[in-house]
Amino acid sequence: MTTETTAPANAAAPEHGPDHGPAYGPDHGPDYVHGYSQTEARRLGDQADTLADLLHAGTAYPAGSRVLEAGCGVGAQTVHLLAASPGVRLTAADLSADSLARARSRVAAQAPAADVTWHHGDLHRLPFPDGSFDHVFLCFVLEHLPDPAAGLAALRRVLRPGGTITVIEGDHGSAFFHPETPAARRTVDHLVRLQARAGGDGLLGRRLHPLLTEAGFARVTVRPRTVYADDARPALVEGFTRRTFVAMVEAVRAEALEAGLSTPEAFDRGIAELRRAAEPGGTFHYTFFKAVAVRP
Amino acid sequence: MTTETTAPANAAAPEHGPDHGPAYGPDHGPDYVHGYSQTEARRLGDQADTLADLLHAGTAYPAGSRVLEAGCGVGAQTVHLLAASPGVRLTAADLSADSLARARSRVAAQAPAADVTWHHGDLHRLPFPDGSFDHVFLCFVLEHLPDPAAGLAALRRVLRPGGTITVIEGDHGSAFFHPETPAARRTVDHLVRLQARAGGDGLLGRRLHPLLTEAGFARVTVRPRTVYADDARPALVEGFTRRTFVAMVEAVRAEALEAGLSTPEAFDRGIAELRRAAEPGGTFHYTFFKAVAVRP
Repeated sequence: MTTETTAPANAAAPEHGPDHGPAYGPDHGPDYVHGYSQTEARRLGDQADTLADLLHAGTAYPAGSRVLEAGCGVGAQTVHLLAASPGVRLTAADLSADSLARARSRVAAQAPAADVTWHHGDLHRLPFPDGSFDHVFLCFVLEHLPDPAAGLAALRRVLRPGGTITVIEGDHGSAFFHPETPAARRTVDHLVRLQARAGGDGLLGRRLHPLLTEAGFARVTVRPRTVYADDARPALVEGFTRRTFVAMVEAVRAEALEAGLSTPEAFDRGIAELRRAAEPGGTFHYTFFKAVAVRP
Repeated sequence: MTTETTAPANAAAPEHGPDHGPAYGPDHGPDYVHGYSQTEARRLGDQADTLADLLHAGTAYPAGSRVLEAGCGVGAQTVHLLAASPGVRLTAADLSADSLARARSRVAAQAPAADVTWHHGDLHRLPFPDGSFDHVFLCFVLEHLPDPAAGLAALRRVLRPGGTITVIEGDHGSAFFHPETPAARRTVDHLVRLQARAGGDGLLGRRLHPLLTEAGFARVTVRPRTVYADDARPALVEGFTRRTFVAMVEAVRAEALEAGLSTPEAFDRGIAELRRAAEPGGTFHYTFFKAVAVRP
């Protein structure tokens, strides 16, 4: 089921139809918890742009490096990776052909000169020889895998000895806010429950150190990268609290109702109360984790 | 009920008897949630030493500045404040005469040349004229006040226009860890419940921005200061996870049982499971907040 397409990043992007729904392979959960809609692609772009400095700071690969981005999705992080590391030879892989097409379109628009190979396939079964890459990068991918240590072990295989892996993940248990009400908290927690039902782990960030260790990496270093927004930072309130986090929770409404986790009234009340964290006097806190480790 | 004692910091400290119990004035809750035992004083010292760089970085007052530390407690932060700001004229105030005596002893040992005036009294009713201080500093104090905005307003009065206030607070809602079990989480949450019963707020850190704004301060800047400990940082695992955080939760055991929040078995199980975050493969995350604002 792995097909590879190689194209210059400025190739014309295909037109995208409406949401094609989940496209996970058999090793994955039944669902990508965030869905594949156009709205969601825009949310991921907003999130990536707001957080680019926070998440990508410290990641710059030398020109000529062979870099793998595993699970590039719609390319939201890809463009920032390429901006920070001009001249790398990037392979961007994803399970979803639709996402990959969007990523190509985004890279064509924002980094037309970049050297990118697009790979449609499963990160657990990459068709590359051992040690094919100098560096591996993945962002918001492990949280969706039923066995993240197995995913990391598969990536370790294609990394050369001495090469680095960089992993960025969130942890929804790090979200707290003011004012915080029981309804808002329950609504945020639905996200974690839905991700667990889909075979993932919305609380993965805190597990990065043991997971990388378990997967055979050495010199594992994990650092929190914290977002905190209050009235003194209106751009962050808008870009992160409202357009990234609240939007992410809102986006699982239909799924939460379908799963019987909430009623329309309770969900909407939770969202309304959560939104107060983005109004004057509100505050919002979230921690991402960034790990770097070495293949021994 | 306000008595003032002025003494050089190297004056002989009085002998301390056993725990004298709560010593809050009428404006405060019935209890200081952490208690006043020798063990607790040692824990506060361990915590302050482990976290000194994290919490005190960026706070250095010019020599000759008139600085008020409101709620200095046993002096755990006082010695770090003095180390970072040699030559200040410090007034250290606390409601508890016993804590103040311990603070004096600690400062005498660690900063014998410091210029410190010790004030026994309530920060809501300080007997100093308006604008007496260039800077006000308080750490882990607001969380214990039933009306923290009123406390801040009282401190604003004794600060000169253009002077700064620096406030450091934790937020127990920021604590998450791996592995995290329901029993461990419930036991941590007892701390928040007990603090609420005592009239305080264990989730105060997230409220610093609105509180300082409400109390009439300007240019309010709040930054998270995050502690994250995993196997790569054994000193932090020992100094923070085990000897600061787990110790703090353990210290409320008798109080939690007395309040009927837990049984001995459930509490001890929660502590045992919480301790796993300090064992190999475990991780622990906590966010402090540091605010700086100006009296207009």
